[in-house]
Amino acid sequence: MPSEWDYVELASRIFSSSRSEVLAGAGEDDCAVVRLGERLAVFTADSLHEKADFPPQMREWEKGYMSLAVNLSDVAAMGAEPAYFLYTVTLVENYPTEKFEEFCRGVLKLAKKYGVDVIGGDTDRGDEFSVSGFAVGFSGRVLLRRCAEVGDRVFLTGITGKAQLSLEQLFSGLSREEIAFPEKLYTPEPRVREGLRISRYAKACTDVSDSLAISLHQIAKASGVGIELKPVDLSELEEFVDSKKALELFLYAGGDYELVYTCDDDAGIEIGRVVEGEGVYLNGRKVEFRGYTH
Amino acid sequence: MPSEWDYVELASRIFSSSRSEVLAGAGEDDCAVVRLGERLAVFTADSLHEKADFPPQMREWEKGYMSLAVNLSDVAAMGAEPAYFLYTVTLVENYPTEKFEEFCRGVLKLAKKYGVDVIGGDTDRGDEFSVSGFAVGFSGRVLLRRCAEVGDRVFLTGITGKAQLSLEQLFSGLSREEIAFPEKLYTPEPRVREGLRISRYAKACTDVSDSLAISLHQIAKASGVGIELKPVDLSELEEFVDSKKALELFLYAGGDYELVYTCDDDAGIEIGRVVEGEGVYLNGRKVEFRGYTH
Repeated sequence: MPSEWDYVELASRIFSSSRSEVLAGAGEDDCAVVRLGERLAVFTADSLHEKADFPPQMREWEKGYMSLAVNLSDVAAMGAEPAYFLYTVTLVENYPTEKFEEFCRGVLKLAKKYGVDVIGGDTDRGDEFSVSGFAVGFSGRVLLRRCAEVGDRVFLTGITGKAQLSLEQLFSGLSREEIAFPEKLYTPEPRVREGLRISRYAKACTDVSDSLAISLHQIAKASGVGIELKPVDLSELEEFVDSKKALELFLYAGGDYELVYTCDDDAGIEIGRVVEGEGVYLNGRKVEFRGYTH
Repeated sequence: MPSEWDYVELASRIFSSSRSEVLAGAGEDDCAVVRLGERLAVFTADSLHEKADFPPQMREWEKGYMSLAVNLSDVAAMGAEPAYFLYTVTLVENYPTEKFEEFCRGVLKLAKKYGVDVIGGDTDRGDEFSVSGFAVGFSGRVLLRRCAEVGDRVFLTGITGKAQLSLEQLFSGLSREEIAFPEKLYTPEPRVREGLRISRYAKACTDVSDSLAISLHQIAKASGVGIELKPVDLSELEEFVDSKKALELFLYAGGDYELVYTCDDDAGIEIGRVVEGEGVYLNGRKVEFRGYTH
């Protein structure tokens, strides 16, 4: 069975862009980047499906909130300021307008927080509830994955693994009131402010949606460098699991929406350093390219 | 069971925009319109689902083509020039990469024709094949639904009803080689060039996706006017059905993606006139607000 990466690679090959104003096209970065006059516009599309992406016990407004959050996370990863959002939503048979209103209120709640205008939407009927979001942002300077340089330090806006840990607790029988980090699972915070702050001095950046390992590999590959990780304090996770499991969650779990970036300043949780070569390493061992697959 | 219009109205109420640069927001027109410096940008999102929207015997590349076509039709309806396209696609279990490649080639075929750059995409797993598209266009002057004036003449870029006629022929047992207008069903042509041409002199405009009747009602309501239709030559349809059925298809069938617009010049197939009052009339009788429902 083909993986998501096979499709992404195929599409990137087919949809190469020829316009000089397109600084990043399909599959190249977290957002497409287009020069519009003196500004840079970023565009991103991301979809969520009931079964693959929404955790159990999720409320309807949280589905709306998350649909915007995952798109804003992509905008944040470019160091851009989000401005506009459009969505399409697939409604199943007999989906009540009350639920749709709650869904919209969830989108609006997060939109207001970051000054985003919801300027369009489309509803259609289908077999499974799903949402596709399209976000537009603007920036003077964008953070591309391909800009890491040997000698850069690597930083993270927050410890990853919390969403997956919480999900596993849910599956083990805990309720949403009992799990460790419910907000990471139900209302993840896109790192918009952090992205804007680091856009002044960071070099490469991406968000962590599938796993930290995958994000690091993407920066390393796009920049033609290696990344050497160093041991990081995982006590936030180790309150709930042993240190081996904590490291597994930190590196390979998805759904946290933190930003990982490189720069030569001191900024955030330092997790490693950019080195010559290729690949991602921790304590001399290869960190695999794997993470959450839908 | 709520109709699509209930959801659209609800969302428009919740997502009202406060920014002065947003000239048309959620639910107001075929696209959202945003002033970006000296240009106007238009944004639209539209989704298609296997069961509700793709006709039987459709080829994979035609699904890609149509996903872009329906979005370009919205851009055309604003009199804007399409520039960028992003999509999300829901892939079912075991969807082969060969089919996905064919799908992408279909998007690319139409994109090249109109100079559109496909700059982003996202794939996710789900229960039903579906595509959401997001198109961006630019214009110096946009054609809003609310700009029709009493005395304007009403025009259409082509006779509507052909897609539905062809679909009914398919359901009656004909093959795709035998139906009357296969290209209307499988590879509808977005009226991009016509939209750009009329943008210089037309007043109100919209595309016909759900039905001509619905589009006319939308222009009439948004402009605070009535529309009086006149008899139109429907011989293209009457080759296949009687005149009563031809009129039903012309007014109430969906899926043709023609443009309907008002102006005081002579341009296109004249179908009526803008009058004082409200509603849409033909031969003194009300034309209903109904059309294709998914």
